[in-house]
Amino acid sequence: MPCPFLGSLNQAFVRNYGGALMKQYGNFCPIISRGFRSMGQDETKCPFIQENSIVADAPREMTEDIVDRGAYPYEKFFHEQISAKKRDYSYRVFRKVSRLAAEGAYPAALEGDGRRVTVWCANDYLGASRHRAVQDAAAGAVRAYGTGAGGTRNIAGNSQMTEQLEAEIAKLHKKPAALIFSSCYVANDATLSTLGKLLPGCIVYSDAGNHASMIQGIRHSQAPKHIFRHNDPNHLRELLAASPEGVPKLVVFETVHSMSGAICPLEEMCEIAHEYGALTFVDEVHAVGLYGKHGAGIGEERGIEHMIDIVSGTLGKAFGNVGGYIAGSSLLVDTVRSLAPGFIFTTALPPPVLAGSLAAIRLLASEEGRTLRAKHQAIVRYFKLSLLIAGLPQLPSVSHIVPVPIKGADKVAQVAESLMKRGHYVQAINHPTVARGEERLRFAPGPHHTPEMIDALVAALTAAFHENNISFNQFTENGACRECRMEYKFDVMYEEPYKQPMQAA
Amino acid sequence: MPCPFLGSLNQAFVRNYGGALMKQYGNFCPIISRGFRSMGQDETKCPFIQENSIVADAPREMTEDIVDRGAYPYEKFFHEQISAKKRDYSYRVFRKVSRLAAEGAYPAALEGDGRRVTVWCANDYLGASRHRAVQDAAAGAVRAYGTGAGGTRNIAGNSQMTEQLEAEIAKLHKKPAALIFSSCYVANDATLSTLGKLLPGCIVYSDAGNHASMIQGIRHSQAPKHIFRHNDPNHLRELLAASPEGVPKLVVFETVHSMSGAICPLEEMCEIAHEYGALTFVDEVHAVGLYGKHGAGIGEERGIEHMIDIVSGTLGKAFGNVGGYIAGSSLLVDTVRSLAPGFIFTTALPPPVLAGSLAAIRLLASEEGRTLRAKHQAIVRYFKLSLLIAGLPQLPSVSHIVPVPIKGADKVAQVAESLMKRGHYVQAINHPTVARGEERLRFAPGPHHTPEMIDALVAALTAAFHENNISFNQFTENGACRECRMEYKFDVMYEEPYKQPMQAA
Repeated sequence: MPCPFLGSLNQAFVRNYGGALMKQYGNFCPIISRGFRSMGQDETKCPFIQENSIVADAPREMTEDIVDRGAYPYEKFFHEQISAKKRDYSYRVFRKVSRLAAEGAYPAALEGDGRRVTVWCANDYLGASRHRAVQDAAAGAVRAYGTGAGGTRNIAGNSQMTEQLEAEIAKLHKKPAALIFSSCYVANDATLSTLGKLLPGCIVYSDAGNHASMIQGIRHSQAPKHIFRHNDPNHLRELLAASPEGVPKLVVFETVHSMSGAICPLEEMCEIAHEYGALTFVDEVHAVGLYGKHGAGIGEERGIEHMIDIVSGTLGKAFGNVGGYIAGSSLLVDTVRSLAPGFIFTTALPPPVLAGSLAAIRLLASEEGRTLRAKHQAIVRYFKLSLLIAGLPQLPSVSHIVPVPIKGADKVAQVAESLMKRGHYVQAINHPTVARGEERLRFAPGPHHTPEMIDALVAALTAAFHENNISFNQFTENGACRECRMEYKFDVMYEEPYKQPMQAA
Repeated sequence: MPCPFLGSLNQAFVRNYGGALMKQYGNFCPIISRGFRSMGQDETKCPFIQENSIVADAPREMTEDIVDRGAYPYEKFFHEQISAKKRDYSYRVFRKVSRLAAEGAYPAALEGDGRRVTVWCANDYLGASRHRAVQDAAAGAVRAYGTGAGGTRNIAGNSQMTEQLEAEIAKLHKKPAALIFSSCYVANDATLSTLGKLLPGCIVYSDAGNHASMIQGIRHSQAPKHIFRHNDPNHLRELLAASPEGVPKLVVFETVHSMSGAICPLEEMCEIAHEYGALTFVDEVHAVGLYGKHGAGIGEERGIEHMIDIVSGTLGKAFGNVGGYIAGSSLLVDTVRSLAPGFIFTTALPPPVLAGSLAAIRLLASEEGRTLRAKHQAIVRYFKLSLLIAGLPQLPSVSHIVPVPIKGADKVAQVAESLMKRGHYVQAINHPTVARGEERLRFAPGPHHTPEMIDALVAALTAAFHENNISFNQFTENGACRECRMEYKFDVMYEEPYKQPMQAA
């Protein structure tokens, strides 16, 4: 029990004036006076004030008979939680940014004070959320079917469109069945917790870099879990080789990592998993809509979709809406549909989200989608090259996600603030989204960012580094980044797509 | 290990032709032939076929040295799960119903085969999802801001409108702060699991009738839990009286029960909780929008909102959109915001949902909302009375939810099917939404159902009971239901609101 009196004072004050405090208030303290009587202690000795820790818990024998009557100090406790987060700079103040959807405005947003800024960190990667066809579908559904589903899937919330969307997702991933959820967080959590709990004796093999939703799902399943090193097939094999035969196993990982942009060795990992009789659960959240001929993700791009037993994806990033899904065998999907509380007991996705998602999936599976993906990759290369040429640091990424490392939650926030002042919004990423010490700015340039916007951003970022006294210039003469050792071929920046004015898609 | 050969055959076939099967195929069976050699067993004796259980697991000593090489039979396992659900009639085939939102069409829907049916079980209780003001707001937001938020709340997904909606919810519930989630399932799960895990030594007291989302949240918190009898303050007091003092406690319950329509003794339960120093977590999901001067729920209706420490509500039922929320003290809400993975790591609610929800909350807080609520209660009374007069059973409900008990998952499904044929959609409710043996039809008549619609439904329901040979007629001469002992005053059905033609709101 901490001293309720001393606990409310400044610690430096207690350190400096402990003796005086004791003289002045000691007689009023029930603990000290009790101490006198029962234990014959030194009159000026407060059990809370100790050598080094200043305000400490009282010795057990002096407090064990004090009954803490009344309620637990909830507000004080919550205050401490918030204070702790503020102290280590992991307390988050959400930026207010209203991303604009009008023709020509994207990717701009109105900032809290009404200024127009360019958004660099949204996961609406290809601008599907403001595409005319997607908007028309969503607005039309609002008029025809209303703003809400009005019930769970079982009770009045299942419409023709709900099943159309699931059929479209299944088709996209070349699976017999698909199931949609409130979000992909819920899809991962509900599916993994249900399968891990249901399959008798199931063992889960989880990539160390997995997203919180998968970690939670696995935890909630209470299945025994082995964690293998991020994207390391050898470690996965090592763990699987030591596993018992004939028992159900799940190998769980992502294709594109959300914070590093790394892409996993998908084929190798699936092969190993299957060799040991495991099912593969593969999160393609940051890949769907962005890779493969029809935008089905890395599995499609590499022609190995069939090696993924359960794919999970989102309608909230490249598909520009909200919601998540899994696709897989009919029986597996039907089992999750029939048994997962996180699917059963919740209101179904509403008509505008269903219609918007359907339109977005079809858009990105079309020729227009392929054009958008080509532009996307081109602008990403331009972006990475521009950072390199400016001598700014970047973590090696083979995908569309470009992380710029700035160590320290305070430092990275300062740089983000400097950028915001200059009209560029990119979120400072800190704990718990990345580990402490791995803070970064995470850029996601898209096909509607122009080379001019990138040039302006790089200039602003350079200025922000200077302003906050962060040394950089890791670019070396041989065309490779000193920090990340990544090499670039300079001529790719002159490929055709970059130079074309970005068409409003 | 079940016999892979016999397991694939019809059990009656095995029972009748076991002997013949043995003669014909016994020599090909590796188990039986092994049995001969190693154990000198009777040649015609198959270890799988036993006295009563027909196809049984083989004795342990005959299978323990069979190593099940290769993968676990996942598909077979999932098949068994689905078969088990089909056998006990708890397998669900979702009805396809596209609820229509056009002027004058509500509360009709297009059924799977294109027929028009009246929807009786949606939780879009007041038709907010098709109200012009709500539709306009949602469609307008799609045009102005697009169909998706484009990120988590921390990364590009937080807009001015997100915070406006939270401020509106806080105002509605007269709390300092509010926080929105993907759904109220997620709100309950994330809040309870976070608080129960975070508060040191927290003990949870959970109503036996709680919704799955709260049960999951409490489970995920891993906090010790006591379950008190549904809506029983005395049992709650008994459990709390035995609890240690000074430790954090959460008392968790709902005001309006979703499947029975019961309303809890809110004041008494909150008083008892506070007497023992517990925080009250109160789910008003089936009450928000429907009770109280501004539609804040039972807490507002009874003038005791301040006794609810944490209120959870939904944007997906009376508010006609999708999403959930909590409201409470600033520090508590900030703690959940800062620490709950289910809040942090998921895409924010999209612009049309935010705008639609804002419009719906404002609508139902207005004079028009009060008129809708009055009509709602009037039509519910008309509905209950009509069932009573027809002699049809109903469970006692003091709220807008009218459950008609029909025991047996098969029976209740048959009656629902009979109703559907007659143009009325009401979902048969079975396990796991209610306990086995407590199957029911759950009606939720609303202000846009007319007395004529109710008359037609009651006639159809009477016919459906006859068609399926379900005896009823529990109505007695003294004006009370024989089964539920509920008494009605007949004159309430002639109050003014019923007779007015329902205005398009």
